[in-house]
Amino acid sequence: MAFWKFFFKHASIIDPKKDMGTLSSIEKVLLVKYCENKGNIVDVYLALNSDVNLYDLENLCDSVGWVRRPLRKVQLAIENSFLTVSLFHEHKSARRLIGFARATSDTVFNATIWDVVVHPEFQGQGLGRILMNQLIKQLRYSDISTITLFADPQVISFYKHLGFVVDPDGVKGMFWYPL
Amino acid sequence: MAFWKFFFKHASIIDPKKDMGTLSSIEKVLLVKYCENKGNIVDVYLALNSDVNLYDLENLCDSVGWVRRPLRKVQLAIENSFLTVSLFHEHKSARRLIGFARATSDTVFNATIWDVVVHPEFQGQGLGRILMNQLIKQLRYSDISTITLFADPQVISFYKHLGFVVDPDGVKGMFWYPL
Repeated sequence: MAFWKFFFKHASIIDPKKDMGTLSSIEKVLLVKYCENKGNIVDVYLALNSDVNLYDLENLCDSVGWVRRPLRKVQLAIENSFLTVSLFHEHKSARRLIGFARATSDTVFNATIWDVVVHPEFQGQGLGRILMNQLIKQLRYSDISTITLFADPQVISFYKHLGFVVDPDGVKGMFWYPL
Repeated sequence: MAFWKFFFKHASIIDPKKDMGTLSSIEKVLLVKYCENKGNIVDVYLALNSDVNLYDLENLCDSVGWVRRPLRKVQLAIENSFLTVSLFHEHKSARRLIGFARATSDTVFNATIWDVVVHPEFQGQGLGRILMNQLIKQLRYSDISTITLFADPQVISFYKHLGFVVDPDGVKGMFWYPL
């Protein structure tokens, strides 16, 4: 059970009903970390399958230099994902989205994680690990045994530290391109 | 457009309304190949998102030595797949399932292909290629740009011949295991 110990040790979970203040969907939200941002300490919250403002998500993806995608398609992709995880903090009485990830799944055997992103201002403070551990935790809670992803070279070591293995038993990730 | 040419050249598509005989869901079914089986020539059909008899699928997976999975879960996995493709022929007035594959997807950006299987009696006759090409064709028809899978070592060259690429730009397939 090392994984759960790891998660709860690092996530600084606090009773959400006690600490959520003005946030509305308290039953779905966890306060996961106090983070530094521009000299201030901010409370960072995590939400599962919550409504995501598409413009906020676009801004977040812009912040890490991803190619823009049509918002209508992004909305469909989120609606047809099995699970989304969002990280945010309160900024001028509004939620500011600072992290996101989602997983597609057949709901029982396999899941594939896509679009893992943490805003550069908040990188290096463990939020990526919290985001991913919560995603894994929820997938495991659904008894999904095969959790997969496709990692760019620069983040392979990050995922290895979370327990992901490259090419186990010689199994290779493959992408289709037109012949 | 080499891909479509390739598919139609090899698939021997015949007008299903003319050739389907007693098969019921003619609008979803293609006659894709005449195959040899135990000295006889049989008509092999392909169906998209058709009802799959779970016991037939279990028998098919048994034929290639896969570990059995709870049927209730298999049913849920099929229900929550974006696309299934089945190959079958008529045997004593019933469908005999001889091939299967499915894909999970967010319906717009990404898809991952799972559970690709062709019965050993029908392997080596191009049915795996037909199955996969039809799956790819349907995913492309939905404008899904990223088509992925995880290939065991012994089938990597098969998928390469279909246009799949291993680790493009150093992107690695990774699987999560508990720490």
